[in-house]
Amino acid sequence: MALIVHKYGGTSMGSPERIRNVAKRVAKWARAGHQMVVVPSAMSGETNRLLGLAKEVSPAQVTDAVQRELDMLASTGEQVSVGLLSLALQAEGMEAVSYAGWQVPIHTNSAYTKARIESIDDKKVRADLAAGKVVVITGFQGVDEGGNITTLGRGGSDTSAVAVAAAMKAAECLIYTDVDGVYTTDPRVVPEARRLHTVSFEEMLEMASMGSKVLQIRSVEFAGKYKVPMRVLSSFTPWDIAIEEEAKSGTLITFEEDEQMEQAIVSGIAFNRDEAKISVLGVPDKPGIAYSILGAVGAANIEVDMIIQNVSKDGRTDFSFTVNRNDHARAMDLLKTQVLPALGANSVEGDAKICKVSIVGIGMRSHVGIASKMFGALSAEGINIQMISTSEIKTSVVIDEKYMELAVRALHKAFDLDQAAA
Amino acid sequence: MALIVHKYGGTSMGSPERIRNVAKRVAKWARAGHQMVVVPSAMSGETNRLLGLAKEVSPAQVTDAVQRELDMLASTGEQVSVGLLSLALQAEGMEAVSYAGWQVPIHTNSAYTKARIESIDDKKVRADLAAGKVVVITGFQGVDEGGNITTLGRGGSDTSAVAVAAAMKAAECLIYTDVDGVYTTDPRVVPEARRLHTVSFEEMLEMASMGSKVLQIRSVEFAGKYKVPMRVLSSFTPWDIAIEEEAKSGTLITFEEDEQMEQAIVSGIAFNRDEAKISVLGVPDKPGIAYSILGAVGAANIEVDMIIQNVSKDGRTDFSFTVNRNDHARAMDLLKTQVLPALGANSVEGDAKICKVSIVGIGMRSHVGIASKMFGALSAEGINIQMISTSEIKTSVVIDEKYMELAVRALHKAFDLDQAAA
Repeated sequence: MALIVHKYGGTSMGSPERIRNVAKRVAKWARAGHQMVVVPSAMSGETNRLLGLAKEVSPAQVTDAVQRELDMLASTGEQVSVGLLSLALQAEGMEAVSYAGWQVPIHTNSAYTKARIESIDDKKVRADLAAGKVVVITGFQGVDEGGNITTLGRGGSDTSAVAVAAAMKAAECLIYTDVDGVYTTDPRVVPEARRLHTVSFEEMLEMASMGSKVLQIRSVEFAGKYKVPMRVLSSFTPWDIAIEEEAKSGTLITFEEDEQMEQAIVSGIAFNRDEAKISVLGVPDKPGIAYSILGAVGAANIEVDMIIQNVSKDGRTDFSFTVNRNDHARAMDLLKTQVLPALGANSVEGDAKICKVSIVGIGMRSHVGIASKMFGALSAEGINIQMISTSEIKTSVVIDEKYMELAVRALHKAFDLDQAAA
Repeated sequence: MALIVHKYGGTSMGSPERIRNVAKRVAKWARAGHQMVVVPSAMSGETNRLLGLAKEVSPAQVTDAVQRELDMLASTGEQVSVGLLSLALQAEGMEAVSYAGWQVPIHTNSAYTKARIESIDDKKVRADLAAGKVVVITGFQGVDEGGNITTLGRGGSDTSAVAVAAAMKAAECLIYTDVDGVYTTDPRVVPEARRLHTVSFEEMLEMASMGSKVLQIRSVEFAGKYKVPMRVLSSFTPWDIAIEEEAKSGTLITFEEDEQMEQAIVSGIAFNRDEAKISVLGVPDKPGIAYSILGAVGAANIEVDMIIQNVSKDGRTDFSFTVNRNDHARAMDLLKTQVLPALGANSVEGDAKICKVSIVGIGMRSHVGIASKMFGALSAEGINIQMISTSEIKTSVVIDEKYMELAVRALHKAFDLDQAAA
């Protein structure tokens, strides 16, 4: 049959009973004739427990040497998971073998706590699969050139699973999680939100980057780069449902445009309130002002998201951008003390009580009037738009955070997202 | 100064606060100019927690594949410890780096859950020490030729520490534990029991094998083979006591006979009640009976300790031996159903309610009458001796287990062990 990668999140691995259920589900797929590679996360709470212990022994500043030890520590959570899952699979009568990242090996760079996968040697894994074994590989970690353990950052197990699927040219990478797929928007905000049967890679990328917590963004990038078919589905369906039914559940992330099953122009509404707005007003309009402002911000390791520069008036312009809300105070301080005097601008204004709401849809590429439909829907609710930025498949607005839920609901309705697609 | 190996047990590593204390103690030694390698055990309770999880997911029979996964799982306990201890050392201002067994690497054979160390490559560790770093290495584990994680069995961290000390020709291996040294006997049985300042390697070996829980026996064998000076001392003395005082505390295990400071003929009284007695009575006295009996027992993987064959009478003899109490029923069954009929012996008798008491002392080699003094002391208490076996530095008797404490106290007194040596 096919080579399939399953990834199970921390909640799915949260107790011995749940681990036994994962083993039963994987065994079902293996018995159906598939070659199975499984990538589990640490048991829920385990990574936090370990990092909590680290804080108790060491209030130290974060040096490279400290981060190396944090990876040494945190990587044990997934090692426990692979050992337990292999044992549970063996108890199910399967042949199973586990590997830590360094054993595969999964090669990464040396950026401790946020390493990037560079290559995967799949020789051992292929040999085991050929011998009829289920292979269980730690998520979240790898090994650098010097033989040091590295971790990929929070949610890194998604990336591990997709990277393994890409390296081994798996038929599909199934991400089992505690939600049953990707929705048109957060169902806690819009009860009518609808599960998407398919979503394009580009749309998923925009939704993931907007704080939709379903998938780690890096895993989506990876899947896009290597065209790994990826499915998000629930680990809480009974393990013994028919495999044909399970294989069609959840949300499939696709890479071929003509494969789009749902031809909706807008696929979903993303939102977040993690950002804050900064405006530099009355900047003398001359070459290099964007660099003068954002160069200083970037040098302080502050990431910038939206950037807007209005047309100038009387030789002066206004320059606005958003940063992570945690960096807002630091960025404001920097601009006031360093940038403003050098630039000769009038003033700096900031607002942390904003949110960003976006409509995302691959169909926007070929349809006009989508943005104005969005602005109209917001205007009808009396919501003032503070900033706008657009890309090929996304239009985002910054509004007062108190209108966030109202805006999301209005847009969900305006684009008929509660109506099932054909 | 010197290269020193410290080993800390699970109790010493039992909480973040205790780990910080270990770090302070190690930092004190490093600041005194020593090159420091530290081998910590898993935090107390952690190995049991992990193996408890394994039992919950897998009631499976113990195959090689199962044991491989148990090692994958159990080895994480020590990895957590080295990460935390390195962080605590860094918080103390030391440069510190941790290694799992596979990273050093510590090469072992592939006998999962009870592997043996074959070699240690100390290149990395030497380079780190030369660079002024404290090196923290996981106890209890290594890596086999195939790159699989192995563990050394319970208490294996002692062996790891001694093996590292041997490979690196350390000046001394200090085993920090929750007792303050090796005693003439268990102080819970004989309140007058006295701490030994030194004990010979051979005596320690006999005491360790008798169930004195201070050190894993394999670590003592290792220390003897490579002549690693080894000291057992308490991790509960304040971390900031003077280093000269600390370096002389506890019990030193020595290898040079002329170094013996204490010339007592008997150094200690060892005892255990983990054994059971089996006697095959009326065995036709012909060549090969020992093999007929013990061959079958050995083939069933039952370890035999004491073996005694009496002189024959009327062409028949009695053959007795002891086994671990857990194996008693199985051994009895084996003898009755398989060995007895083939051998033509009269009967098999067993007794699980026995204990073994031994006097241990390197001085026994050159002194006569020690054994009879032992028998006299027991006789004076009305204790019947069921079996006797002797070696160069040990005389052991099997007695009814209800007399164990009485016998130990009587012997402790008879050999003046409560009197401090010169």
